[in-house]
Formats: sequence, structure tokens, C-alpha cells
Amino acid sequence: MITDTDRHMMSTAIAEAEASLTAGAIPIAATLARGDQLLGTGHNERVQRGDPIAHGEIACLRNAGRQASYAGTTLYTTLSPCAMCSGAILLFKIPRVVVAEATTFAGDLGFLADRGVAVELLDDQQCVELMSTFQQRYPQIWAEDIGEEPPS
Amino acid sequence: MITDTDRHMMSTAIAEAEASLTAGAIPIAATLARGDQLLGTGHNERVQRGDPIAHGEIACLRNAGRQASYAGTTLYTTLSPCAMCSGAILLFKIPRVVVAEATTFAGDLGFLADRGVAVELLDDQQCVELMSTFQQRYPQIWAEDIGEEPPS
Repeated sequence: MITDTDRHMMSTAIAEAEASLTAGAIPIAATLARGDQLLGTGHNERVQRGDPIAHGEIACLRNAGRQASYAGTTLYTTLSPCAMCSGAILLFKIPRVVVAEATTFAGDLGFLADRGVAVELLDDQQCVELMSTFQQRYPQIWAEDIGEEPPS
Repeated sequence: MITDTDRHMMSTAIAEAEASLTAGAIPIAATLARGDQLLGTGHNERVQRGDPIAHGEIACLRNAGRQASYAGTTLYTTLSPCAMCSGAILLFKIPRVVVAEATTFAGDLGFLADRGVAVELLDDQQCVELMSTFQQRYPQIWAEDIGEEPPS
């Protein structure tokens, strides 16, 4: 079930993703929260910092700092998580993930669900459009970010 | 097959892991190389920078910077990779991983091998002793780093 808190936390992530596209960079962002307590936010920093591992979710977890436990947390992400970010969710036993969209990058939400993560997919059209705009404008950066051969 | 270059690259990672323990921190480190060209090194920075996602492999990939392709690279790591670091290896299609030891943390090397990664396990006793010393000295930091409940 999606709550008003969920919508608020996702809107924070979406605003950060939009700001990243405005900066000519990758518009994917995430927030980590425990209930209505925001623990951290982050956006993809491949372009801004030349950091290939700073996917939105990874930057968010970095910015949230050390946690003795992730019990009771929810990770909100504007795009379905890649293998690295899915692995981070499993490593830290983050129990719930809310995903804005899995249309422009499928990820493997079944992999997470099979391992006990509660996954909620919003199918948010605003995020689909944001990523589609980025993918069309910067196809080589996008290929680089997901380990694909660049388009010729 | 383990080559002299492999031994050299792993010794660089081990030296960085040892320096991390000397600093009172987590002694896990990694190097990324393409043949005999060193692309980057990194060590776990949970303690030094309060960064929970800077596992040795992740810090190494960050320090190596943006790569158009990881074709032909080998990742050397002093400890069997966790779910997050395994996911990073798969995301970026790193074709070969050399692991010093999987005794003090098993990880899931079969998961990587099943997905086409060439995995070499050295069973290095120096690294087993390094991690054993750390795990006994700092059990709570270790639990935090791998998302386990802290020992009571």
C-alpha cells in the first residue's frame, strides 16, 4: 500500500532526479526513510563527480551514513535498481523498496521480491518521461552507466 | 591460471588492506587492472569516511573513475565479494575476479561463476589471518559492514 509519506518521499527523489537532468547529468535519485524520518537522499553522480558507482541508490545510502541497522527503512528510487543497487538492498537487508518506474530500465524486481524484499512499483509516467528524455539526449552516458556497449 | 601480474596486483590490494587495519579500520581492499595496467585501487572506508557503501571493491571502482568498458579487466579483492560488490561486477561486466580468500566471509562465488565471471580463489592465509584479527578485534564494525545484527 502506498501512503502519503511514500508519495512525499518519492517526490523528494523525483525533484533531485530532475535537478540532475538540468545539470546535464543522469536523472536518477533515491531517498531512504524510516517511517516519516528522512535518513538521506542522493542522485546519480557519474557526470557531476566522475563517479561510476554513485548510482542514485548508492549515493543515497552513502549520504545516509553509517546505520547500525536498516530495519524499518524504505528505499525510494526513481528507477528500477540495477544489479549493484539490488545487491546493496540485499546486503543491508532493506526490507521495502518503492520504485517509480521499471519501463525505461527493467532491473530485476522479481529477484528482490524472491529474496523477501517488499517491492512496490508506481509506474510513474513523469519518471518515464524524465528518463526517456535523458536516454534520447545522452545515449552514450546511459550505456556507460549500465555497462552496455555504447551506441554506434 | 594465476600469473605474476596477478600476484603483483593482489599484493598491492593486500598492502592497502593492511594499512586499513593499522588505521583501526576494515582491512579489505581491491585493485582493478587491465593486464599489467593498474586502473585503480581502493579500501573499505566505512570507518575512515563514515561511508557504508565504500566496500573495498566499490571504492576501487570509484577511484578507477569512468570507464567506457570494463572489457579485459580483472578485479582483485582480498575478500570474497558481498551481494553489492557482486552486483557491481555483474553490472559492469567485469570478466574476471581474483579473490584472496573466502574463509572469513563466503560471499557467493558460485553466483558470479554461474553468470559467466571467471573466478579464481587463492585461499591466501595471510588474508585469512588479517580478517580474523579484525573480526575478533572489532566484531560490531564487522557486523555493521555486512548488514548483520551486532553481537550482544
